[in-house]
Amino acid sequence: MTEANSEEAAVRPVFYVSDGTGITAETIGHSLLTQFTGTRFQTDRISFVDDEEKALDAADRIRRAGEKAGSRPIVVNSCVDPRLSAALAQSGALMLDVFAPFIEPLERELGAMRQARVGQAHGIVDFDTYHRRINAMNFALTHDDGVAINYDEADVILVAVSRAGKTPTCVYLALHYGIRAANYPLTDGDLETDRLPARLRPYRRKLFALTIDPERLHQIRQERRPNSSYARLDTCRREVAAGEAMFQVERLPTLSTTNKSIEEISSKVLSTLGLQREMF
Amino acid sequence: MTEANSEEAAVRPVFYVSDGTGITAETIGHSLLTQFTGTRFQTDRISFVDDEEKALDAADRIRRAGEKAGSRPIVVNSCVDPRLSAALAQSGALMLDVFAPFIEPLERELGAMRQARVGQAHGIVDFDTYHRRINAMNFALTHDDGVAINYDEADVILVAVSRAGKTPTCVYLALHYGIRAANYPLTDGDLETDRLPARLRPYRRKLFALTIDPERLHQIRQERRPNSSYARLDTCRREVAAGEAMFQVERLPTLSTTNKSIEEISSKVLSTLGLQREMF
Repeated sequence: MTEANSEEAAVRPVFYVSDGTGITAETIGHSLLTQFTGTRFQTDRISFVDDEEKALDAADRIRRAGEKAGSRPIVVNSCVDPRLSAALAQSGALMLDVFAPFIEPLERELGAMRQARVGQAHGIVDFDTYHRRINAMNFALTHDDGVAINYDEADVILVAVSRAGKTPTCVYLALHYGIRAANYPLTDGDLETDRLPARLRPYRRKLFALTIDPERLHQIRQERRPNSSYARLDTCRREVAAGEAMFQVERLPTLSTTNKSIEEISSKVLSTLGLQREMF
Repeated sequence: MTEANSEEAAVRPVFYVSDGTGITAETIGHSLLTQFTGTRFQTDRISFVDDEEKALDAADRIRRAGEKAGSRPIVVNSCVDPRLSAALAQSGALMLDVFAPFIEPLERELGAMRQARVGQAHGIVDFDTYHRRINAMNFALTHDDGVAINYDEADVILVAVSRAGKTPTCVYLALHYGIRAANYPLTDGDLETDRLPARLRPYRRKLFALTIDPERLHQIRQERRPNSSYARLDTCRREVAAGEAMFQVERLPTLSTTNKSIEEISSKVLSTLGLQREMF
């Protein structure tokens, strides 16, 4: 967001405004802004704007930010009530309403009017949904680094050497999709052969392997345990090479996590294993 | 997504199609669908559609899903290349392009053309960004339940009795905003007085308290440790009452997590403490 052409370039204030959490507005706004690399943006979130007074307060704050920056603000707005959008528009900002363009085509297609209640997407949840999600999260955390594993219950088992990206991916899959993702960290013993560890063999169809560039792994492990033999570049090279040999012999779906975001790794796991889950 | 009017109602196939992870398409699509409660939707994600052949394959799959369901599919599409969108449209689906309505107004406002590269929002990341995020995540996990705490480094410290929602909130804040969120679980000893535990006093401005309905807490703890004294309803009532008394005396910002989503709790923490961070 802050790649500037020059230090003197005007900063453009951007506000994600919502009657709920603002996550939808922020997600699409963020995606839009990444497509305009020549501008510096200063982003702010204004959540839970659910009455006209709050909307007018927000409009005032937005207008002042524009005056201070010397440029017209941009509002990415997901309020469902048009009166709130109208109040926000008094800021003079460029208004981008994230739902408006899609509601009419959907209403026409579905032959039904939208139910314009606020904050539905990330709002109140029923106990079962909450529970499923938290259970998946506990699963991801409990199973971290091979502790207390019951692989029967896992939807997916990520196999990799230490610090290749298993934990964040497991947690992301749990949080966003309620998927029970387990970790299997490859030990030195496992890496002595190019065959799967015996414990994993019954679960072949749940396995997904992660690999990583050894230099990057070295960099990550150095931060974690500086100057340990664990972090040494030749250790990383040896472990990665042995892991990759195993993945190839066993024909596991394999992804390199180097320079990949957690979202990207998670999406690849889902699409490769054909896991279709509803987003939370 | 599955609240049906009747079991016989036609299911409407919905596809989130993207040249990258599909997270943006899925987030806005999910928000849109929650506004149409009278329809049953069957949602699928087709990620990494980054050439025309994949787009035509996707179109074919979408068309067949519509034939099978006996209703016209809906495509929520975030491909930036118009040729891919055109190929997808051959499915005959209702096409909702999540970027199209906003690009022209933004180009006009910014006086610049978009850089239409694929999957930028959740794609390749530099080492520093990745590292900041993973460090925050390690922080959230390491500090869980009071282990090895260095509160000086925390951006926020969530204070609550056990199982009131601290861990998922910490992990969400770390994953999505790179915020170092620490846990402080209130112990029986802490709850004997209505003053803050001594360890927390230097960090007053970082504190955010969570509370929960005792019945709900009982339900959650029962799943975790059935029929333990820890899970008993009267234990839950006593702990919650003592915690709330402390939060009130110490005037901590407090939120009840009952029936709230992790996103909602996280957003409230951010907006209350005035933490403004860029989304990952």
